[in-house]
Amino acid sequence: MSDPGDLPKVVALGGGHGLSSSLAALRKVTDNLTAVVTVADDGGSSGRLRSELGGLPPGDLRMALAALCGDDHNGRRWATVLQQRYRSEGPLNGHAIGNLLIEGVWQTIGDPVAGLDMVAELVDARGRVLPASTIPLDIEADVLGLDLEFPAEVQVVHGQHEVAVTRGLVQAIRLLPDDPPACPQALAAIAEADYIVLGPGSWFTSVLPHLMIPELARAIIEAKAHKVLTLNVTAGSETAGFSPTRHMELLGEHAPGLRLDTVIADETFTREDETLEGACAGFGARLVVDDVAMHDNTARHDRLRLAAVYSEIMLGLRHGRPDV
Amino acid sequence: MSDPGDLPKVVALGGGHGLSSSLAALRKVTDNLTAVVTVADDGGSSGRLRSELGGLPPGDLRMALAALCGDDHNGRRWATVLQQRYRSEGPLNGHAIGNLLIEGVWQTIGDPVAGLDMVAELVDARGRVLPASTIPLDIEADVLGLDLEFPAEVQVVHGQHEVAVTRGLVQAIRLLPDDPPACPQALAAIAEADYIVLGPGSWFTSVLPHLMIPELARAIIEAKAHKVLTLNVTAGSETAGFSPTRHMELLGEHAPGLRLDTVIADETFTREDETLEGACAGFGARLVVDDVAMHDNTARHDRLRLAAVYSEIMLGLRHGRPDV
Repeated sequence: MSDPGDLPKVVALGGGHGLSSSLAALRKVTDNLTAVVTVADDGGSSGRLRSELGGLPPGDLRMALAALCGDDHNGRRWATVLQQRYRSEGPLNGHAIGNLLIEGVWQTIGDPVAGLDMVAELVDARGRVLPASTIPLDIEADVLGLDLEFPAEVQVVHGQHEVAVTRGLVQAIRLLPDDPPACPQALAAIAEADYIVLGPGSWFTSVLPHLMIPELARAIIEAKAHKVLTLNVTAGSETAGFSPTRHMELLGEHAPGLRLDTVIADETFTREDETLEGACAGFGARLVVDDVAMHDNTARHDRLRLAAVYSEIMLGLRHGRPDV
Repeated sequence: MSDPGDLPKVVALGGGHGLSSSLAALRKVTDNLTAVVTVADDGGSSGRLRSELGGLPPGDLRMALAALCGDDHNGRRWATVLQQRYRSEGPLNGHAIGNLLIEGVWQTIGDPVAGLDMVAELVDARGRVLPASTIPLDIEADVLGLDLEFPAEVQVVHGQHEVAVTRGLVQAIRLLPDDPPACPQALAAIAEADYIVLGPGSWFTSVLPHLMIPELARAIIEAKAHKVLTLNVTAGSETAGFSPTRHMELLGEHAPGLRLDTVIADETFTREDETLEGACAGFGARLVVDDVAMHDNTARHDRLRLAAVYSEIMLGLRHGRPDV
């Protein structure tokens, strides 16, 4: 495995901080890495840019590029610039600098994928970052319990940001439009992948949306790759109170026909979930339980311990590549 | 002269399109090139950014960086991005993408010179771009003829943009503050230069301001370098009706004590100016008259013909370096 050509081809799907954690761990296992990123964000800097300039929301793509930045001085310093935000009393305040750079490259050269490749080169990225769809998407959710007088009534909440912060209980999500074009380069990467990694991340807004893009879901289901699902280390805000098993059920409800090979779960979060192993078996998957959480109350994965688990699955090595 | 270490050290001072022309010609003569750039702009994208974020106006610095971009694919494509402008119906509309990138790097790393060096690396710049002063400046001008009832009355016009577009006759300019700190790296480059090049450019807003920064003027006057002044190819809007000789007089009035070695003038613009040679002699300078203008009514220098003149002065070669 010392020849980089022998390193496994890995495609990681997700968005936001969950995908950043996933990439931070996976870059320790392989350089042959493609991130496929959600494009439904409508909040914050991305939401403002999407509304002002049209086109894809850049924020999740920017975070993935920063997570894949080179270990060298150049890669690190540009990744720091990408992640920094303008501070002012005016209209630039709060915009991530990398969001404006990505938008600027897009406005100059037109093609979103070529633009992302150009910013990837800037940060000496150890892999490629692609949008899940070539058009911006919207998320709509069925939410229970928003009206205290009618707690059993399901209401529709519109927009990724509103879904992410709703105080109701999300039951299901849909995309608008419901059959958006998948990014062709993402489909090609999935077809050629040795490993496909779903999760961790906000379940309804970062993990499930990929599976609601029919072309992308079909490509994942049909791919010959070994499929890994990494469960979150806590329930998170969108899925407060949901057990690991309930997370698996939601996946099955949103992606009928999906089979998995391995499910990675944190030992603390799964301790009392006695049905999880069966739920995994329902997908054809082996359950791997390990201590993969940060122990700092941040609900994040420990990238080194997660990398060790990926390394064992993908390289047969418990401690990752000796040279990284 | 085939060893790059033998190439002359050249410092070019100016701003805007004039400095871009100067750099486009000088890069054909040497790679040992430092641009020292005006920082008094208060119009357009730079003016808006200066007002929103504080700090130096980035526009003239960005143009100089783009003018020095590498000849390779990477340098050219990033220079194209820097020069592009956002198009929208919102607050980003009209901002040069490079202006926001420079501001973003400044907001991240703080030091303006280190930030410019970082963007210079991005475009594989053939030289260095430095601000004339470490603080943003303002220009104030004495202007004649603004009040039609009192045509001999001098009024004060404030701000570089207002000075550049005034319909009155500019008599003199001042900087606010009047003794700003020069950029130390610019002072060092001037002290070590083999050649210092002033002009072409908007006389009151791009050429004279450097000489109003006392530290910078002193460094130029005391420098051992061969000093070249490149006159404009037409009078331009700020100096409508001014002869080449009048341009020289303005230089003397704003920079007492300045001596020059060579003055480059276009043969068409100087045809009827019989006092120019004497004006040059007053600075100790030899006058070189040549056909250096574009013949397309754009009031620009032809970069190749200007490069040939610089090459003869700096390398003793009429046709520039054979390898560029």
